[in-house]
Amino acid sequence: MSTIPASLPLRNDLIGEEPYGAPQLDVPVCLNVNENPYAPEPAVCDTIARRVREIAPTLNRYPDREHIELRRAFSTYLERESGVKLDVDELWGANGSNEIMLQLFQAFGGPGRIALGCDPTYSMYPEYARDTFTTWKLAHRNPDFTLNVERTIEAIHEVKPAMVLITSPNNPTGTPLAMDDLRRLLAACETASVTGAPEGVHSVLVVDEAYVEFRNPGTPSAVTLIKDHPNLAVSRTMSKAFAFAGARVGYLAANKGIIDCVRIVRMPYHLSAVTQAAALAAFEHTDEQLSRVAHLRETREATAEWLRAQTYKGQPLEVAESESNFLLFGGHFDDRDRIFEELLKRGILIRVVGPEGWLRVCMGTDEEMARFREAFAQVLRLVEQA
Amino acid sequence: MSTIPASLPLRNDLIGEEPYGAPQLDVPVCLNVNENPYAPEPAVCDTIARRVREIAPTLNRYPDREHIELRRAFSTYLERESGVKLDVDELWGANGSNEIMLQLFQAFGGPGRIALGCDPTYSMYPEYARDTFTTWKLAHRNPDFTLNVERTIEAIHEVKPAMVLITSPNNPTGTPLAMDDLRRLLAACETASVTGAPEGVHSVLVVDEAYVEFRNPGTPSAVTLIKDHPNLAVSRTMSKAFAFAGARVGYLAANKGIIDCVRIVRMPYHLSAVTQAAALAAFEHTDEQLSRVAHLRETREATAEWLRAQTYKGQPLEVAESESNFLLFGGHFDDRDRIFEELLKRGILIRVVGPEGWLRVCMGTDEEMARFREAFAQVLRLVEQA
Repeated sequence: MSTIPASLPLRNDLIGEEPYGAPQLDVPVCLNVNENPYAPEPAVCDTIARRVREIAPTLNRYPDREHIELRRAFSTYLERESGVKLDVDELWGANGSNEIMLQLFQAFGGPGRIALGCDPTYSMYPEYARDTFTTWKLAHRNPDFTLNVERTIEAIHEVKPAMVLITSPNNPTGTPLAMDDLRRLLAACETASVTGAPEGVHSVLVVDEAYVEFRNPGTPSAVTLIKDHPNLAVSRTMSKAFAFAGARVGYLAANKGIIDCVRIVRMPYHLSAVTQAAALAAFEHTDEQLSRVAHLRETREATAEWLRAQTYKGQPLEVAESESNFLLFGGHFDDRDRIFEELLKRGILIRVVGPEGWLRVCMGTDEEMARFREAFAQVLRLVEQA
Repeated sequence: MSTIPASLPLRNDLIGEEPYGAPQLDVPVCLNVNENPYAPEPAVCDTIARRVREIAPTLNRYPDREHIELRRAFSTYLERESGVKLDVDELWGANGSNEIMLQLFQAFGGPGRIALGCDPTYSMYPEYARDTFTTWKLAHRNPDFTLNVERTIEAIHEVKPAMVLITSPNNPTGTPLAMDDLRRLLAACETASVTGAPEGVHSVLVVDEAYVEFRNPGTPSAVTLIKDHPNLAVSRTMSKAFAFAGARVGYLAANKGIIDCVRIVRMPYHLSAVTQAAALAAFEHTDEQLSRVAHLRETREATAEWLRAQTYKGQPLEVAESESNFLLFGGHFDDRDRIFEELLKRGILIRVVGPEGWLRVCMGTDEEMARFREAFAQVLRLVEQA
């Protein structure tokens, strides 16, 4: 708990707020923040150290504010990953996709502006809105967590948001968004007017693809639509499938106009030379960094099947359809905090997030998942006895 | 020039704005962004690479959100540099002091809140205000760029700012702030009420000490007053004297209450594990990193003397009294852009900043300063002929 003296001029709307974030606990099995559990290989670590050593003699100078070489690497990666060739000025990097999203809110949000999300969704979005004085509105998803496209389009025309945020696959549910639905949302954004903006201005559709590499093979990414849609912004990250959360590298793919808007509000030199070097090193090893993604997808399918075979209060557990590296499960836990705590006692850290009655677990190594299953089976027996 | 389509919902107040920043030009002698011209020694570079290699196998995991080890290093450094022992919870790091300042504005600014600066001062402050919808007000400095303390205290009571920003040494003038003046400003902040805040709330005084290591020996830093002043925040950076601009590490020293306010608005995991490792490595070599500071101070004194001996339109050049690594000079240039351009043609990049009639040059290596003097003498002769 923070103890903030009443004499400090903390913004009135922040009084009583706590810093955002999952608990940082020292626990043997951490399945709470959707990391890739497989550490970078020694060869990758060596390249990172070598690249950093190469730029170290320049560290008395400011970094390349435009991070051109890194934006080229994003382009190469996206061409490989999604089959789309984007130019350097259609890409932009930042310290995690958190900062990408904050920059989008800084450029398009603000007092009198509205951002629309589809809940349940990523719990940081309302924080970006709060921190930029943007009004945060919600269109609810269907009971199975798929997007309710009609309802969302209605909301776009009704609330006239400056930004519509769609997470695909969604967090914390894992739900993907179909391309046809995305096209319909884009069409709505491209015709809707925007509260607090002049005539002729339309909504930006932000697709947050933090977990997109975990989608089922053959599904296209939203980046395939960028060339035809000037109001589409796709946020990506190296933190998840790419196993690079510690380096804090997110990126934005969009038409040059959107990138130029973000450039107005970015801090000068926001991306350090060390971060740029480390990310370039990791991109030299794209194959190794992504080598466990297919296995994590299999782990997700096997874990979903196992969870569906468990029962709680005589009912089988529900598991949300996921194309990500985590599963939202339960659906009818009447005391999810207790299950969380009992798992924690057994050295397993998961996350209390999403609608009441549900919990989220991310995919660990085979050994970590075995320990999770063993502990969770114990906990289910324990709570059933109560 | 950016070309932003009119259909994008860019904030109304950002329309027509350009990204902030000095031109990034490939020029032999860069004396424009107040960097330390001396590169890290090979031993420092080796330690940076070693520390990064050590943490590289953990990069699939998120970094320590609270960056505790780095905050300990800030404490050790400040004890050595300023003779004050601060606790970990009185220190806070971010991606450059830019991000420190933005976080302070996010916590204490916002619509209906006012921030007060003393111009001429650092040209990013109005950008932080703009990006957080904070009203930016100014109390003018004296003609010799010293702070007009009476006028500033009057402004504090009149506009009731949530934040007062004092840069010491000031940028772009180099002017230091005397401790007695700082104490008087603190007393005013601690009694003034704050526009847009409840009764009993008082202004935060932010002292931006980006260049403080260049001050004359024996002058105390504002950090010596922190323990007694809960509304004092001191911003520092590794970018200048510490020769680490490329790594983007700024930090904040203040009472725990202020740090807790900043923690509410910070992005989760804003500071990467690579940045933390690189900064810790540099702090292992504090002596080497700071080894050129005394020489740069001498360079400043010698350059100031040389500049004062030059004439323009028959008048000797003015040079603002500086305790930093740069000099604001001229005072009566009637076309400073031309002098800038003529220097640039000769491979010397300085900065057009500060009041009309003045230019800013930062201290380079001995060789760079010799080239600057030679080129500037040529340019003076050239413009005198016109």
